[in-house]
Amino acid sequence: MANNQKKMVDDITSMDVDFAKWYTDVCKKAELIEYTSIKGCMVIRPYGYAIWENIQRILDGMFKATGHENVCMPMFIPESLLQKEADHVEGFAPECAWVTYGGNEKLEERLCVRPTSETLFCEHFKNIVHSHRDLPKLYNQWVSVVRWEKTTRPFLRSREFLWQEGHTLHATPEEAIEETEKMLGIYTKFCQEDLAMPVIQGQKTESDKFAGAERTYCIEALMHDGKALQAGTSHYFGDGFAKAFDIQFADKNNQLQYPHQTSWGVTTRLIGAIIMTHGDDNGLVLPPAVAPIQAIVIPVAQHKDGVLDAANELCDRLNKVCRAKIDDSNNTPGWKFAEYEMKGVPVRIELGPRDIEAGQCVVVTRHNREKTIVPLDKIEEVILEKLEEVRKGIYEKALENRERRTYIAHNMDEIIADLEKNGDGFVKAMWCGDEACEDKVKEVTGVGSRCIPLEQEHIDDKCVCCGKPAKCMVYWGKAY
Amino acid sequence: MANNQKKMVDDITSMDVDFAKWYTDVCKKAELIEYTSIKGCMVIRPYGYAIWENIQRILDGMFKATGHENVCMPMFIPESLLQKEADHVEGFAPECAWVTYGGNEKLEERLCVRPTSETLFCEHFKNIVHSHRDLPKLYNQWVSVVRWEKTTRPFLRSREFLWQEGHTLHATPEEAIEETEKMLGIYTKFCQEDLAMPVIQGQKTESDKFAGAERTYCIEALMHDGKALQAGTSHYFGDGFAKAFDIQFADKNNQLQYPHQTSWGVTTRLIGAIIMTHGDDNGLVLPPAVAPIQAIVIPVAQHKDGVLDAANELCDRLNKVCRAKIDDSNNTPGWKFAEYEMKGVPVRIELGPRDIEAGQCVVVTRHNREKTIVPLDKIEEVILEKLEEVRKGIYEKALENRERRTYIAHNMDEIIADLEKNGDGFVKAMWCGDEACEDKVKEVTGVGSRCIPLEQEHIDDKCVCCGKPAKCMVYWGKAY
Repeated sequence: MANNQKKMVDDITSMDVDFAKWYTDVCKKAELIEYTSIKGCMVIRPYGYAIWENIQRILDGMFKATGHENVCMPMFIPESLLQKEADHVEGFAPECAWVTYGGNEKLEERLCVRPTSETLFCEHFKNIVHSHRDLPKLYNQWVSVVRWEKTTRPFLRSREFLWQEGHTLHATPEEAIEETEKMLGIYTKFCQEDLAMPVIQGQKTESDKFAGAERTYCIEALMHDGKALQAGTSHYFGDGFAKAFDIQFADKNNQLQYPHQTSWGVTTRLIGAIIMTHGDDNGLVLPPAVAPIQAIVIPVAQHKDGVLDAANELCDRLNKVCRAKIDDSNNTPGWKFAEYEMKGVPVRIELGPRDIEAGQCVVVTRHNREKTIVPLDKIEEVILEKLEEVRKGIYEKALENRERRTYIAHNMDEIIADLEKNGDGFVKAMWCGDEACEDKVKEVTGVGSRCIPLEQEHIDDKCVCCGKPAKCMVYWGKAY
Repeated sequence: MANNQKKMVDDITSMDVDFAKWYTDVCKKAELIEYTSIKGCMVIRPYGYAIWENIQRILDGMFKATGHENVCMPMFIPESLLQKEADHVEGFAPECAWVTYGGNEKLEERLCVRPTSETLFCEHFKNIVHSHRDLPKLYNQWVSVVRWEKTTRPFLRSREFLWQEGHTLHATPEEAIEETEKMLGIYTKFCQEDLAMPVIQGQKTESDKFAGAERTYCIEALMHDGKALQAGTSHYFGDGFAKAFDIQFADKNNQLQYPHQTSWGVTTRLIGAIIMTHGDDNGLVLPPAVAPIQAIVIPVAQHKDGVLDAANELCDRLNKVCRAKIDDSNNTPGWKFAEYEMKGVPVRIELGPRDIEAGQCVVVTRHNREKTIVPLDKIEEVILEKLEEVRKGIYEKALENRERRTYIAHNMDEIIADLEKNGDGFVKAMWCGDEACEDKVKEVTGVGSRCIPLEQEHIDDKCVCCGKPAKCMVYWGKAY
């Protein structure tokens, strides 16, 4: 596996040498993004955007199957509208981009570019919800939002990012909480099954809640380097926004009531999570469900009679069962191998004159470079088996990484020792529920609370920090 | 067809009484949009957004089938970047929304919210195009853009609107022109076949070109009231932008060349065009291809034994061949009839106890309220025939309206007389090519040049205005 392949691979930093540099190398070399002259804003290139389109398509199907409808709100929020809910404006105003001029005229009231759209949905809900018959409202939108971050990184933290934001309104708190949990379940299923990425379901602590929420649920994933990444959130608002925006409905007894609200979202961050969960020193490794190309056909000795015809025919057959592509460019096979490894294509199929003669092809799975000789007449079923093998293989590998990097600690010294000895990871430790202890753990050990997992374990009776009676077990970690 | 239906229909203004009021009534009553507190920005509600999703899905398939890839550019353009191409900035700067603050900090350079993205694509092309092997680049994006319009109307002219913008780069002018024309062809096919809306293909006059373009092609449709609507545009830029942005590529002889560029777009305006082309006094009439619900099943006497079961079963069967829905709410059938007529659902299916006994149902087409008794076991094939019947029926009706409202004029007096006698419409008349004449026709008769149609007719030897030798035939009209 030739010099060409070597050359291309040499171009990216090894993940063990400099994980951050490896990450941006992969983003660029796999042609996911390109930088722009607007600080913190990027171009999502066709290959990167096609991953997002697959994420959208699958999630959108799950949202619609659970009764949600897509809408589109304006991208601007008048300052006075943003200010209606006190916690919310406090959380978001400092990172808003403000429009102050329309053409040559100064605006009477400045408008922020939406950092999130609760306030817009509330204004709309007030207009269209009057009776219990108007509930529930189960809305979602696929848009971009802007948050004026100081430090930015492709996909992980950018000033503009793509996301979906679900916003729902319900007659009772029970229904709204059920919705919040249902959507957390959908995110979990999507991440674990489609992205092959194990996640922990949990609840954020008080200090880490979304601005304006009563409860914030989240899913947390552990990246290859042992840092945690929040992969999705689901918020229960109670009737706080409804009261702030004066949204009321007449119940069955014709009594006015405040409805209860939720919102939930995932972003293009998921692409960052895919890169850092599954990638390796040869580049990207894509979960088959969202891979723009699931199988790449590479003709070997393609100048020889009949090779290209046979390869094209094979590709046509594959396209009936998966997303297949042929590369018949003039690059060498070795070059192509490296290119599609960099791009994380789950399965590569090599077909040369001798294969054709023998009625077979060579199938190579990206994540473990395992080769299988496959009879050509079996390729449709084998390709589906192989894609499933990749999905399971990369899930197992990610799970193994998380388990190896999950530590149990009974006191602060153990936290420090674990991290020092085994590197970054999740620390499972008990907490008394006091914010002062939360802060102190972070200050002393470097890891912050990631979530209070829904699945609790009893590790100790006492808080890892103060030694007082513990309320719950918390996952602690360093976060992206 | 009861009082309930009457009541709902009475709520909208008749199109012959006040077409503009009828239009906004339909937008609201069919639940396509809702106004917001941000002037000129609207909420696109689920039913309206579902129409846009269908438009997107069909067009996106056509774009991908012709080799185009989706990308996503930032929504902001630094002022200095917008200024690089002189004509372009002159055209767009006066209607830009400007971001001047990020959080509490004043920006060093203000950013406009993209009114269109040529400048961003150029910056990106400069980064990624170096060799003839990098060409062509065939890109598209689905985003929203902002233009600070003074007078706004839902879908037709709003400060923020949704669109797709294709941007392509080619080695030669011929290839770029071919692309410009190919995309005009795709828009034409989509409008005529999927939206059932006849269009005229043409070229804009010099004064009406897109800012920075060498040529602007367009498709023009005639609305029910005789006013013209530009439904899509496709621009050829030559190498003007490439020179302004210093984009060069090495050709096969390793000589540096400037590439040639195009852009093309359609917007949520198309929804306005659908409303004003096909709608009537009972509300919206949707072309089946983009209708969120293609067939609505309405149970009659649904409290009677077996009716709801049979209606649900019918709906399930229909859903295998089209987008069908059942309304089993407690509203009266008459109320439901009016509701789905308002929403423009192409086909309604009524099923009551006597129908079930007779093994039949009643199928009613929206555009002409024609009733057909259909044996239940034939419903799958009949529904597809009926949807095609609606498509053809509304196309013919729109074409008939356009033909009735297309006038031929040899001089200014004839233009004035035609419009006065027969109402607004297209005027076909010759033109010398002089901008002064173009302006004078508008000033004197009220109709401006809509396009120089690709399909020319010889009406006269002389310009309709000055009497000098004519260069071409022009479609004139009042425009939305």
